[in-house]
Amino acid sequence: MRKVMVHITLKEGVLDPQGKAVQHSLHAHNHKNVGEVRVGKYMELMIEDGADIDKQIEEMCEKFLANPVIEDYTYTIEEVIA
Amino acid sequence: MRKVMVHITLKEGVLDPQGKAVQHSLHAHNHKNVGEVRVGKYMELMIEDGADIDKQIEEMCEKFLANPVIEDYTYTIEEVIA
Repeated sequence: MRKVMVHITLKEGVLDPQGKAVQHSLHAHNHKNVGEVRVGKYMELMIEDGADIDKQIEEMCEKFLANPVIEDYTYTIEEVIA
Repeated sequence: MRKVMVHITLKEGVLDPQGKAVQHSLHAHNHKNVGEVRVGKYMELMIEDGADIDKQIEEMCEKFLANPVIEDYTYTIEEVIA
């Protein structure tokens, strides 16, 4: 069994209204030293070992988990000892 | 300037309907070897150096970014060379 940790973030230059909202809220609560905030998704997937797990993960990310037009994804894989 | 990377995940045992939905969708597209999926948030914050940056980050996480009742948070800090 493998644990796959996927980070999905907006591409450079893509406007991040959610990040802006978080930043404004932090400023309103006196955290004035906070600059840009970018909000993304973090997923953990448990996957049974398979033939080509990298290929499968990339397919899942590109087709289902991330929007390739506006998002980038990275992932790392950890062995899970049952 | 520091770059703070925050991971916000649901606490162990908290039901994750979003994760369930992702899992079912992956199964429906023949990724049958995918087990549990947990969906969380990933944020990157740029913060000007300050006196006690850890204390500030913990306060922001506990009061604004994460819901301490159902979510856990972790963070790492990177020096950003301007």
